[in-house]
Amino acid sequence: MATLVLLRHGESVWNAEGLFTGWVDVDLSEKGEAEATNGGDLLLDNDIVPDVVHTSVLKRAIRTANIALDVADLLWIPVRRTWRLNERHYGALQGKNKAQTREEYGEEQFKIWRRSYDTPPPPIADNDPLSQVGDLRYAGLPSELIPRTECLSDVVDRMLPYWYDAIVPDLAAGKTVLVAAHGNSLRGLVKHLDGISDAEIAGLNIPTGIPLVYELDHDFAPLKRGGEYLDPEAAKAAIEAVKNQGTATAKA
Amino acid sequence: MATLVLLRHGESVWNAEGLFTGWVDVDLSEKGEAEATNGGDLLLDNDIVPDVVHTSVLKRAIRTANIALDVADLLWIPVRRTWRLNERHYGALQGKNKAQTREEYGEEQFKIWRRSYDTPPPPIADNDPLSQVGDLRYAGLPSELIPRTECLSDVVDRMLPYWYDAIVPDLAAGKTVLVAAHGNSLRGLVKHLDGISDAEIAGLNIPTGIPLVYELDHDFAPLKRGGEYLDPEAAKAAIEAVKNQGTATAKA
Repeated sequence: MATLVLLRHGESVWNAEGLFTGWVDVDLSEKGEAEATNGGDLLLDNDIVPDVVHTSVLKRAIRTANIALDVADLLWIPVRRTWRLNERHYGALQGKNKAQTREEYGEEQFKIWRRSYDTPPPPIADNDPLSQVGDLRYAGLPSELIPRTECLSDVVDRMLPYWYDAIVPDLAAGKTVLVAAHGNSLRGLVKHLDGISDAEIAGLNIPTGIPLVYELDHDFAPLKRGGEYLDPEAAKAAIEAVKNQGTATAKA
Repeated sequence: MATLVLLRHGESVWNAEGLFTGWVDVDLSEKGEAEATNGGDLLLDNDIVPDVVHTSVLKRAIRTANIALDVADLLWIPVRRTWRLNERHYGALQGKNKAQTREEYGEEQFKIWRRSYDTPPPPIADNDPLSQVGDLRYAGLPSELIPRTECLSDVVDRMLPYWYDAIVPDLAAGKTVLVAAHGNSLRGLVKHLDGISDAEIAGLNIPTGIPLVYELDHDFAPLKRGGEYLDPEAAKAAIEAVKNQGTATAKA
């Protein structure tokens, strides 16, 4: 049996401002830092001691992990970073205001871009200042591997090789594994773990800063579908809040 | 040709209080955080872009790296941590006040413990609260590998395998390598790189928070003995300040 702990980064500056973020490397807001601290407190209070942490290469996830691990006095554990855990690439929408985008393109199109499993937003141009082509951190990737846009299906496709090749071996070695990542890379992983259908995944939201713990069987499948949030009440409230807002102010 | 960048952590809380620290996992002071920020600014100003960072498993080195890399917008680079880059284990002196120790044991003995190449302080007892035996982060090490005390010679012996097996391969791959570590693990590495004698190394101090850059030849030997500090004036002043203080308030 192995333990997998998922931690979605806290609020970023662009979350707070209502902008599509995707692969743009935006920092945590003060509220986001506080959420990360809370995540560390929850690990500590529940005696969850990760043996290793995997993060994306985006600073809002890295700093969430650093803050939470500092609180839990676990800064010393091994770290691995990968672009495969990055947030969904939001294509030409990166940097755009969500409310304005809804107004400009209409509710229906907006919903499709935000929650459709297999329809990506329009691609970003390589010469767009918010494109990741030419970004030093992806210099080791062939150009065809750098997304210009992604739907959730694309995220699952590029995330799963890392799950199988890097995270599962750690779990197989009996480690408690912390994954600090993003709304959509974690939704993709949860979809895979819980066997959620392409249609149903649209309704699943993962709250920020609340560790979600999965106990896994010998075949790396969840003993309990959906896992357990370390603060179930807060998680429930956060999920309800998103539902009640509709898509209008939901984070992406 | 490869580039090696050494960064000694900023002031810790126990540095500030004049206590022997060694393997006790003491955090940075506010001054130490500012020194780390300055280290990141120096990397940025000098266009030094590490491809990978190696740290000890002690939080004062880890947080120094995290702070400096955050400033330089390089939080995303690969990270490796190892106990082999830890500070010298200070044995039974860990947690003791330096001034009181000097008074109690006399200047001569004090000097030997602080700067002798091959005479370690008395060993710490395994049941001492400041011993690292039983510390979770060393749970993967056989007991005989956990130091009870170390002289600088011991540090060189346990640090060099990591130099050869982990750092040199990164350099051989053409990477710019950042090593964020401690006064004595870095003195040990510099002794090796510059071919400093056992006697001469006593007089060498490495300032905190100022990156020291070595360009290395095909055999991983320095092109320039002693390397280059990114802020040579500040480094010189810091080294002079330590000399003028004598051993009295020098950091260990």
